Order: sequence, then C-alpha cells, then structure tokens
Amino acid sequence: MNIIDIINKKKNKEILTSKEINYVVENYMNDNITDYQMSSLLMAIVINGMNEAETFNLTDAMIKSGKILDLSGINGVVVDKHSTGGIGDKTSLVVLPIATSLGVKIAKMSGRGLGFTGGTIDKLESIKGFKTDLKTDTFIKNVNNIGMSLISQTEDLVPADKKIYALRDVTGTTESIPLIASSIMSKKIASGADKILLDVKVGKGAFMKNITDATLLAKEMVKIGKRFNKETIAVLTNMDYPLGRTIGNSLEVIEAINTLDNKGETRFTELCLHEASYMVSMAKNIDIKSASMLVEEAFLSKKGLEKFKEFVSAQGGDINKIKVEEDVIKVVSSKEGYVRDIDSLNLAKLCNDLGAGRKNKKDVINEKVGIRINKLYGDFVNKGDILFEVYTKENLEIKELEKNFILTKEKPQDIKIIYKIIK
Amino acid sequence: MNIIDIINKKKNKEILTSKEINYVVENYMNDNITDYQMSSLLMAIVINGMNEAETFNLTDAMIKSGKILDLSGINGVVVDKHSTGGIGDKTSLVVLPIATSLGVKIAKMSGRGLGFTGGTIDKLESIKGFKTDLKTDTFIKNVNNIGMSLISQTEDLVPADKKIYALRDVTGTTESIPLIASSIMSKKIASGADKILLDVKVGKGAFMKNITDATLLAKEMVKIGKRFNKETIAVLTNMDYPLGRTIGNSLEVIEAINTLDNKGETRFTELCLHEASYMVSMAKNIDIKSASMLVEEAFLSKKGLEKFKEFVSAQGGDINKIKVEEDVIKVVSSKEGYVRDIDSLNLAKLCNDLGAGRKNKKDVINEKVGIRINKLYGDFVNKGDILFEVYTKENLEIKELEKNFILTKEKPQDIKIIYKIIK
Repeated sequence: MNIIDIINKKKNKEILTSKEINYVVENYMNDNITDYQMSSLLMAIVINGMNEAETFNLTDAMIKSGKILDLSGINGVVVDKHSTGGIGDKTSLVVLPIATSLGVKIAKMSGRGLGFTGGTIDKLESIKGFKTDLKTDTFIKNVNNIGMSLISQTEDLVPADKKIYALRDVTGTTESIPLIASSIMSKKIASGADKILLDVKVGKGAFMKNITDATLLAKEMVKIGKRFNKETIAVLTNMDYPLGRTIGNSLEVIEAINTLDNKGETRFTELCLHEASYMVSMAKNIDIKSASMLVEEAFLSKKGLEKFKEFVSAQGGDINKIKVEEDVIKVVSSKEGYVRDIDSLNLAKLCNDLGAGRKNKKDVINEKVGIRINKLYGDFVNKGDILFEVYTKENLEIKELEKNFILTKEKPQDIKIIYKIIK
Repeated sequence: MNIIDIINKKKNKEILTSKEINYVVENYMNDNITDYQMSSLLMAIVINGMNEAETFNLTDAMIKSGKILDLSGINGVVVDKHSTGGIGDKTSLVVLPIATSLGVKIAKMSGRGLGFTGGTIDKLESIKGFKTDLKTDTFIKNVNNIGMSLISQTEDLVPADKKIYALRDVTGTTESIPLIASSIMSKKIASGADKILLDVKVGKGAFMKNITDATLLAKEMVKIGKRFNKETIAVLTNMDYPLGRTIGNSLEVIEAINTLDNKGETRFTELCLHEASYMVSMAKNIDIKSASMLVEEAFLSKKGLEKFKEFVSAQGGDINKIKVEEDVIKVVSSKEGYVRDIDSLNLAKLCNDLGAGRKNKKDVINEKVGIRINKLYGDFVNKGDILFEVYTKENLEIKELEKNFILTKEKPQDIKIIYKIIK
C-alpha cells in the first residue's frame, strides 16, 4: 500500500477501503505521509467526495489515533451536545443545566473557539475562578455528584483530527461534508457519551449557508453516530441572526443566566427549551411531547438556574464575578422602521476585532468586550432608539455601525427558529 | 491576493487570472506558498482542469522563473524536437542529424531520463568522451559550425517546472493535460528555438494510453506554441511496442548509427524519416512532400550518418568506443507462431532493474545493459528461435522472460506507426 496509489484512487473517484483509510491516518500521524501528500488527498476528497462507508471509516481511523474517554464510572445516561457554530451561541449554557436538572448526565469536553464563533469553554472562563482543566477523576466525580461537568478537550482526544484540521485550514480544504462530519463525530464518539444531540446551524452567520447542505451534513453525522451504536439526533436551526441579544464572552454568560431565570429573549429561550427537550427525550427514552412538558416545568421552577450555579461553583467559579467592559458605545438609529436585516457576520467580525475571539490559536481573549442588541429582527425602531451597544474602550464611528441594520416600512415576516429534526 | 482564495477558486471550477497564476508561481518559488498549499492547488487543477488561457499563463509564469536561452547568435532557423517519452526512444539521434544535414539548425537542451524512458543525454553519454555540459558560447559556435549541438538542461532553465514537477511526482498530480502541456512547453519556449516539433507517444508503453487523450495534449501544446509565436507541429505516434529493436543506452546509440547507415528496422526508420521531413518542412517553409524527398535523398546518401559523426566528435565523443555488456541471455521460444503482443512496459522495467534507467535522480546508469529484440510484432517465430537477448551479467529465468511475448497462429494485422499530425 502506498499513498500515491491511494491519492490516485480518490482522484479517479474510486472508493477507498477501510485498510487504505487506516493506512492514511496512521502514516500521517507518524509522519510517513507528508503534509503535501495529505493536502493533495484532502483536495481530491473535497472535490470527489466520500461515501457513507468511507466517512465512517475515516471517523473510526481518526478516533483510533487517540484515546476514547472512559465514562463507565458515571451512573445514568450521558448525552452530549454539539453545535456546528453560530454567532452569540450560548445555547449549551442554558440547555445543559436544564437537561441535567431532569436527570440527564452531562460529561462534556468542549473546544476553544477560533474565528468568530466563540467556544463554550472560552465563555465559561469569563467567570472568575472557573476551572476548565479538571482531572478525569474529578470530572467523573462532579458528573456523579451534580449531574454535569464541562472541561476543555484533552490533547489525546482525536489527535488526528487536530493535525488534519490544522492542515485543512491552510489548504482550502475545509468545505467538505464528509470531512466536516468525520471531524465532528470523531470527537463526539471519542468523548464517550451514550447519546448525541447535534445542533446544525444554517444561515448567513453559519458555515452551512442553506438547508440543503445542512441537511446533508446532519444526515451524514446521524448515520455515523448510528454506526457507532450511539443514538444521534440533529436539529437544524436558524443562524441568520445572532442568537439572543449578545455577542461576547461575559455578556453571553450573563445572558445565559438571565435566560435560565426566565428573563431571556423569546426566540432564543424557545430554541433552548426545544434542545433540552430532545436531550431529555433521548436520555429517558420518552416521546418529545412528554419531555417538553418536563422541560417546561423545570424551566419555570428555575431548576436549570440552580443547576447552573451548582455546576459553576463545583468548578471553582464565582457567578457574581463576571466582568463587562464599562465603556459602551450606543448606536442610535437616525431613521425609523422595522428591522428587516442585521449584518450578523459583520457584527461577529467586529466583536472578533475588539478581542472577543481569536484570529490565531495563541491569541488571548478579552472576555469583557462585545455587543448587546436592543432591536431584534422584526422590532419597530423609532428615530433616536438605540439599535445596539458596543462594549469597548475603542473609538468606533457610529454612522458606520448603524449600517449593520436595515430598516423597512413594512413589518417583515416572522422567522422560523427550528427548521427540522433529523434522526 | 492570497493562496487560500486562489485554491478555493479552482476548487469551485472558476478560472484563474494571469495575475493569480503569476502570484502562485512567484510565491511558490520564494517559499511564501508551501508545498502543502501548492499540492492542494495542483490536485484541484488535475480534477477541475484549466482552460487555454490559464494553461498559457501558467506556461508563461513558469518561463519567467528562469532565463530564456538566447539563440540569436545562430544563423538560420533553429527547430527543436521533443518526445513525450517512449520505450527504446532513440528517434532524436536519427532525426536530428538528417535534418541538420539539410540545413536545419539544432541547438537542443535535453533532460536526463527518470523511470523507464531514457533521456537522449544519457544515451549520448554512453559514447566515450562525449561532453554534455558545454558552455553556451561553445554550444552556439558548434551549432554555427556543424549545424547541431545537444547539451543537458541548465539549472536556470525553468526552475519553477523543476520544483513543481518534483512535487507532482510525489502527490499523485502528474496526470493532467494542462500541467503536462505547460511543463513541456515552458521548457521548449525557454530553450529559445524558432519552431518546435512534438512527438506525442500513444499506447501501452507511453504516458498517454489512448489517441483521444494524446490528441488533447497535442492540441494544447500546439496552441501554447502558437501563442508564443513559435510554429509548432505535433505528430502522434505508436508506442505500443519498443521503438526499433533495442532498449538500453549503448545498444540504442549503436542502433541509431545503424539506422542512419540504412541498416535499421523498417518501422523505426519510417518514423525517423517522417519526423525529419516535418522538421525540414518547418525550417525551410516548404510542403511536406518536397521535404520528404529531400530527406529521402539525404538518408540514402548517408548525409545524416556523416553529420552524426561530425557532431559526436565536436563534443569530444569517440563513436568507435561504445561498450556493450559481453554476457548475453538468449531467450529462446518454446512455441511457434506470430508475435501478436510484446509486454513493452515489462521489458522496459526489466531494463530499468538491470541498471539502464534511474529509479531515483541520483542513480548512476549502467550504459552497457539492455535488450535486443529479434522477433518484432507480426514476425513468425519457429520453436527454438531467439525472441530477444538480454545484455546483463545477472541470472534471469528464461521461462519467465519468454512470457513477455504472446504468439498466435494467425498473422496479426499491420500496425500504424504515425496516427496523425496536429498543427
């Protein structure tokens, strides 16, 4: 077996065998296959695709490059949740404690953010004292005692994905459903959960721009999960606008707490309760209606909020110590009308530029900066109303900032938050 | 401009601009673009192709990476010849002296062989004393005095092609008509000739396996030549069987001399006279019929042989000192019948294994080893006849060697030597 023959097969649209895929991953990890050979193969995969078996085999080969987290010491059903990445995506911080309060076990490893989509771990670290590098036994103990724990990904969680992802990032080979699906699912499977909920974001602020592509990705991931005997459900959700009202680490944690306290933005709250319901439904093997009722009840009695406080404190965090930038630029509207569009990507890039996200892996995040949106999609704006506020010490031109909002005379149609469920 | 955007364009089947292609070649040469980015782009080009303008622009960008050989000091029309590579391909050694004897100027830089297709330079070096590294002024002087000179390619002849070709070789990105065409034509244009004859080999022993692909490649190269204002003609020729009777450096030089002496194999002689006619036709701007008559005359009066001797001696070679291995294995037929097939690739690999060719660039060639074929395609073989002889000191199993020839009862159809001409 040699890499040139394997590259030629994929170049000619042939199907790679399990042996060939294992050979590639193993030999790339031990440097027998060079970066330039791997990137040539990756481009052939991006253009010519991979079938279901190949995608499964690639996922499996990547998992074997590291260690599978052993969660057998946890009593109860462990459900993992993964979002493909959105703007202002603090969903996990709301969904997980609600689900935990209903008996779902959460033992989650989470990545750091790169680019404009912040990572859950980065958000939690804006809480003073919060530790994300617990040892495995403490992690397991916390899950058994409280019901949930979140830590940052360990080095030996699918090292092949780390190495391949870094190469894809600099060789124009990121856009590929089999490569994205196997990258995500290898980490989910290696994280050891029993069941998996996937939140596939669709829209202007997401990697998947349309429902067709998002559906393909979701189906691919659900199939992989099933082949590993893990019940997997994917929810396709709207990512045309930032989630909730905030972007930026501290601001988002505070918004999550407010949402758990039933003071959150309506559409975001709805999304969180839906996702929590799917997690409860999977963990308890009950239908989605019954699960929704349980979730509604737990939410209204603020059990999720209590669970969140317990969880934060168990990992050393002080929920009362979340710092937000004191200087705020208020972006006031010079016109009136309904909000018909918000340039979500541009707002996310602005937050990134202010220091809320990383451009390079080694960048240090400024947790205090960000944006709070006062006028959401469909809201009516009077001349002089605040559209949004920017938490920053920097000077920004308000006229330019205002351009991120498009107003119209007629009230725009309502938007859907959840597009579809793929099981 | 950045490489990721350029890779993404080609991945999405868009057309690269001249600026983008120049950016890629320049930045790959100064190491701003890495090997792994270049191989990703090359694979996208292999799969998604390049149009005529892109192929021209790539050729042009590669030429600019080095120096164009200045042949303005030569009096007369300089015609270059290039073969895409065949087994036992000593055609240049016969064609060039005949053309030169009729006034065509030959100032040719030639590459060394890699793999089973030997290079003309390697063949000439089997003549004792023959120098292939003449200085440019000696090279030009020889062309003006004798009419022809052949030297090995200098380091500054299209360095971008050298670097890109080395990468293609190890990344499964060799099979691509625009990449092959631009690689060949960049060297031809940079070599400074006025007109170019291309011999595109087609068949089992060639890179191009069928006439359709060979025609595409030939058309692409002819178009590039024309865009550089160089008259270019491509001849598609049969490469199902070794050319002539021999494979191996010394054996091939001796066969070339015999062919010039009108003692050569019929089909090979026919091929050489055809190609010489096209060179004369181009150089003198006369029709092919008139050129053929001149060539026939020169051939029969052995002017080509005289020219070859003159040329060899001017470069320090002694035509009487060409050494061939003394130990010979005679492969005798155990059956009778007509030769219906010869496993040309296998014979070429055998010669390579014996030391006639290079597996790696640094391998030293053994010029004395090789094969002489006694029974050609279509010949009748009696039991006990010698099929072919292997010049080697090694022990080889005759039973295995015999398998390279397939015999049948019925006489097989005649084969075509020249398929078509593309102008």
